[in-house]
Amino acid sequence: MTNRIIDDYKPLVEKALAKYLSFEPSLYDTVVEAMNYSVAGGGKRIRPCLLLEFSRLCGGNRAAALQMAAALEMIHTYSLIHDDLPAMDNDDMRRGKPSCHIKFGEDIAILAGDALLTHAFYTAASCSAAPADAVQKSIKIMAEYAGATGMVGGQVIDLQSENKTINLEILTTLCELKTSRLIETACVVGCLIAGADEAHQKAAFRYGHNLGMAFQIVDDILDATATAETLGKPVGSDKENHKNTFLTLLGLEGAKKAAHDYTNEALSALEVFREDTTDLKELTRALCSRRF
Amino acid sequence: MTNRIIDDYKPLVEKALAKYLSFEPSLYDTVVEAMNYSVAGGGKRIRPCLLLEFSRLCGGNRAAALQMAAALEMIHTYSLIHDDLPAMDNDDMRRGKPSCHIKFGEDIAILAGDALLTHAFYTAASCSAAPADAVQKSIKIMAEYAGATGMVGGQVIDLQSENKTINLEILTTLCELKTSRLIETACVVGCLIAGADEAHQKAAFRYGHNLGMAFQIVDDILDATATAETLGKPVGSDKENHKNTFLTLLGLEGAKKAAHDYTNEALSALEVFREDTTDLKELTRALCSRRF
Repeated sequence: MTNRIIDDYKPLVEKALAKYLSFEPSLYDTVVEAMNYSVAGGGKRIRPCLLLEFSRLCGGNRAAALQMAAALEMIHTYSLIHDDLPAMDNDDMRRGKPSCHIKFGEDIAILAGDALLTHAFYTAASCSAAPADAVQKSIKIMAEYAGATGMVGGQVIDLQSENKTINLEILTTLCELKTSRLIETACVVGCLIAGADEAHQKAAFRYGHNLGMAFQIVDDILDATATAETLGKPVGSDKENHKNTFLTLLGLEGAKKAAHDYTNEALSALEVFREDTTDLKELTRALCSRRF
Repeated sequence: MTNRIIDDYKPLVEKALAKYLSFEPSLYDTVVEAMNYSVAGGGKRIRPCLLLEFSRLCGGNRAAALQMAAALEMIHTYSLIHDDLPAMDNDDMRRGKPSCHIKFGEDIAILAGDALLTHAFYTAASCSAAPADAVQKSIKIMAEYAGATGMVGGQVIDLQSENKTINLEILTTLCELKTSRLIETACVVGCLIAGADEAHQKAAFRYGHNLGMAFQIVDDILDATATAETLGKPVGSDKENHKNTFLTLLGLEGAKKAAHDYTNEALSALEVFREDTTDLKELTRALCSRRF
C-alpha cells in the first residue's frame, strides 16, 4: 500500500539526514563514513514521518520539524548500531547488510553510535526555525525518552530477561521503554516544536504509546506465524532464541486481541486533533496489521 | 596546593552530580548503578570547576552553571567508560578501581555510557535558571565539541595512530580534539550560560584550547620523567606502548618549551575578563606544572 505520510515525508527525511550528516573531509573520515553507512541503511523512517505529521497536525513549521525528525532518526540509528554489538545482541546483519561493527570494526561502531547520538542533539540544538523554548523542551523530551529511564532502560531490561521467563507486567514495561518511548518522542516532539498545547502533547503521547505497543505485539505474532517470504526476514527466531514475547504469554488469540485494543486506543487518541487525520489513521491501521 | 576554584566548587559539583543522577528504583537499576559508579570515580572535576569559574567571571547565575557543569562531567565520564572498553583501549582499571565493564559487564558499560551521554543533554535541557536561548546555545556547543568533529573525532584519530608514527601536525589535531575540546566546552559554556558576549566566548575558547594543549604535553613529559610515586600511577607506559607523544616528537626541552608557550597563551587569554582572575591564573599554572 501507499500512504501520503510516508510517500511525501520519506524523501524529505532522507534529504535532511544527508544534509545534517555531511562533514568536511578530515582525519576522522572513517567514523563519518560509518555514521552515514548505518543511517543510509534505511527502513521506513516511521519515527521522523510521524514527527512531521504531528507537527503538521499542530500547524508547525516544516523546516523545524524536519530538523528534529533528522535528529530523532540519528538517535534511532545509534541504538541499532550499539544493539548489534557483540557484547549486546551480537547481530552480524542489519537490514540485509553487514552490521556497522562487521563493516567498520567494533571500535569504530561504538564511536559511530556515540557520534550519532551526540550529533542528534547538535542537530536539534542548531534549529533556528522554532522558538528557543520549543527547541529546549524538544531536546529535553528526546533525551528523557531515549535515556536510562526510557529506551536505554528498556534495553537493560531486555538483556536481563534473556533466558529467563518474565511475566506480562515486565514484558509490557520492556516494550514500553524499548519500543514505545522513541515513537512517543516522535509524536510529542512533533507537537512541541509546533508550539502545541498540553492537551495535544498528551494525545500525541497516548497515540505513540499505543502504536508502539501494537507494533511490537504484531511483530511477535508475525515472527511466529508469517512465512519468511511474506515477512522479508527470517521467521521463528523468537522461539528459537527462547525470547519472551506477547505471543508466548498471551497466546495467539490473546495477542491478536491486545494488538487490536492498542490500535483502537491509538486511533481514539487522534480525536483531539482538528486537522484531517485520515492519512494518519490509515497509516496506523497499516502499521498495526503490518501490511506495509 | 589548594585553590579556591577547586576547593569551593568541587563539593558543589559532587552534590549536583548526585542530585541529577538520582532515579526512582526500577527494573533497570543496574545501569543507574553503573552510571553512578563511574561518575563517583572522581578525579579533580577540572571541567565543571572551570565552567563554574567562567560563569562567575561573566556574572552568571550559579544554579544554571552548576546544572551545565554536571551535564559536562557526565559527558566526560561517558567518554572514559567507552574508552576503557575491550574494543577500545581495553583498560581494566580506572582511577584505582575496576573499570565499568569489569565491574558491570561490557553490555551494561556500553549502555551506562550511552545513558550518561543522553542524560547529560537531559540535564542541560532541564535548566530553567537561564534563558532558553542561552541553554540552546550551550547544548549546541557541548554536542559539537563532544561529537564527531570534536572529542569522538579525536578518539578516532588516536585509534588510527596506534603503532604508527604520526607527525606533529596530526598529533596536535589529535590532542586538540581529544583533550582540548571538552576543556574548551567548559570555558565557553560557562560564558554562554552567563549570557556573555562573543569577545568573552572567544577568549574562553582560547584559554581552554591552550590549557588543554599544555595539559597534554605536561602529561607526556610526566609519563616519561616522573616516578610512579610522585605521579600516583604507572609511568613509562607511553614508551612501552610505542605511543606518539609530544616528547617523542619534540624532545624533552622542546616539549617543555611548548608547554610553557601554551600556558602563557592561556594566561594571556584571560586579560579580557574584568573580574579578578588571580585564582584562575594560579590554577592554570598549577595544572600546567601538574603540582596538583
